[in-house]
Amino acid sequence: MVRHNLEYPKDVHNTVNRYKHQAVYSLTTIHTIINTTPVLHVSFQPSPTDPFPVILPMIGQMGSFSRPSASLSEPLEVYLHGYVSSRIMNLARSSPDTKGLPVCIAASKVDGLVLSLTPNSHNYNYRSAVLFGYAKLVDDVEEKLWAMELITNSVVPDRWRHSRVPPNAGEMASTQILRVHIDSGSAKVREGVPTDVKSDLADSQSLKTVWTGVLPLYEQFGEPVPGPYNEVKEVPEHVTTYRERFNGESMQYAETAARKSAPVE
Amino acid sequence: MVRHNLEYPKDVHNTVNRYKHQAVYSLTTIHTIINTTPVLHVSFQPSPTDPFPVILPMIGQMGSFSRPSASLSEPLEVYLHGYVSSRIMNLARSSPDTKGLPVCIAASKVDGLVLSLTPNSHNYNYRSAVLFGYAKLVDDVEEKLWAMELITNSVVPDRWRHSRVPPNAGEMASTQILRVHIDSGSAKVREGVPTDVKSDLADSQSLKTVWTGVLPLYEQFGEPVPGPYNEVKEVPEHVTTYRERFNGESMQYAETAARKSAPVE
Repeated sequence: MVRHNLEYPKDVHNTVNRYKHQAVYSLTTIHTIINTTPVLHVSFQPSPTDPFPVILPMIGQMGSFSRPSASLSEPLEVYLHGYVSSRIMNLARSSPDTKGLPVCIAASKVDGLVLSLTPNSHNYNYRSAVLFGYAKLVDDVEEKLWAMELITNSVVPDRWRHSRVPPNAGEMASTQILRVHIDSGSAKVREGVPTDVKSDLADSQSLKTVWTGVLPLYEQFGEPVPGPYNEVKEVPEHVTTYRERFNGESMQYAETAARKSAPVE
Repeated sequence: MVRHNLEYPKDVHNTVNRYKHQAVYSLTTIHTIINTTPVLHVSFQPSPTDPFPVILPMIGQMGSFSRPSASLSEPLEVYLHGYVSSRIMNLARSSPDTKGLPVCIAASKVDGLVLSLTPNSHNYNYRSAVLFGYAKLVDDVEEKLWAMELITNSVVPDRWRHSRVPPNAGEMASTQILRVHIDSGSAKVREGVPTDVKSDLADSQSLKTVWTGVLPLYEQFGEPVPGPYNEVKEVPEHVTTYRERFNGESMQYAETAARKSAPVE
């Protein structure tokens, strides 16, 4: 089943009001940003009387346990990995809301510094996504194992079967997986060359003195560094292949974004 | 005045309960992570009746307007940059709490993938910081201009005076700066080679088949890409110097972290 261009409907939580033209509601775009970001920021309200919401950096991945072949363009859930007795797990376990613990999940990448004539028009090329949903503990052992494999393979594709698996009883007991049912989501994406307003573009003094352009920014993996008890001489193919692909795609995205035509701003 | 090793006191909000040995309360460490992260994640509760907290990606920087020479080891405030009528600004403007709008600010960097024998012992080398505080609008024009310069120069050092300044009336009117008075904060840092538990280290079959080590991960700037209306032939020194220093330090940190001795886990 292929679903084209599914979008999260706009509601009070996910509607972008500033730089609306940069807003994206497409499931594919939002899910791709979430699944390619190594750390997700997860926010929750620890108690009704606490003034502060809390943000936790967590590792997670979107997928569908009921239909594992689902693509990023389809409705998915977020699986988050944590320690069994951490606060967010305890809150999800005891959440008064039967839907689960309300959470906000954010993922952001900076792809370049956009240096324009005036500080006000400076910008980033970036991709950011936010999801709102309800988190529940995964109790089913099959779903838990499936999610643990999904998350491990998001760190390095195919890593799971190249490590010592299955997890033993102690590992299973100390690991807790949260499943977040998504309520709504949105993304913002900026790519392209600098922009400035007409009055600055007409100011020959500024144009003569201020360099304008983009500094592409991207993540790279260095050479693999074997650990002190490593006995496998050759770095395995699942690691080297991923490193090469990641480094190429990461650089390519930022370099291409730096040269795209001016977005409406 | 030099203050050595000031720490945020542990309280109910900032105390780290999991991987306590990785917890850091040092102002220097926490402020450095915040000030070297290009996007901060800022969380707030939009209303008492809304189930979801909101996370916004924002640009910000720590500093002290009353004592601009203050170092990162001293008490500082966070200055966040935004649009005058955005939701967070409206909430801060109308906050019922006279202290300001309660926010949580998070910054996270991944410095390497730590690939160990079993998925359970996989890890990241990383630096993450979280701050809790109260956000108020900056009304004073001098403080606002000072913060705008601070934030612009955090994107590229010395950029402010190399761009068209001062901001005009329209730019000043559309820009709002939030000042966050910090209540508490903490950080977590992991660096070093992989670790595994004794039973796995004694398992010769795992040792023979699973490659263990670190894939260092770091951000790099590509070559500066001049924009379509750039007239300054040579890329200016404030840009080239920053790029070189950033690329060197960024790579050096991740490569060094990948080789440090095993942390307690």
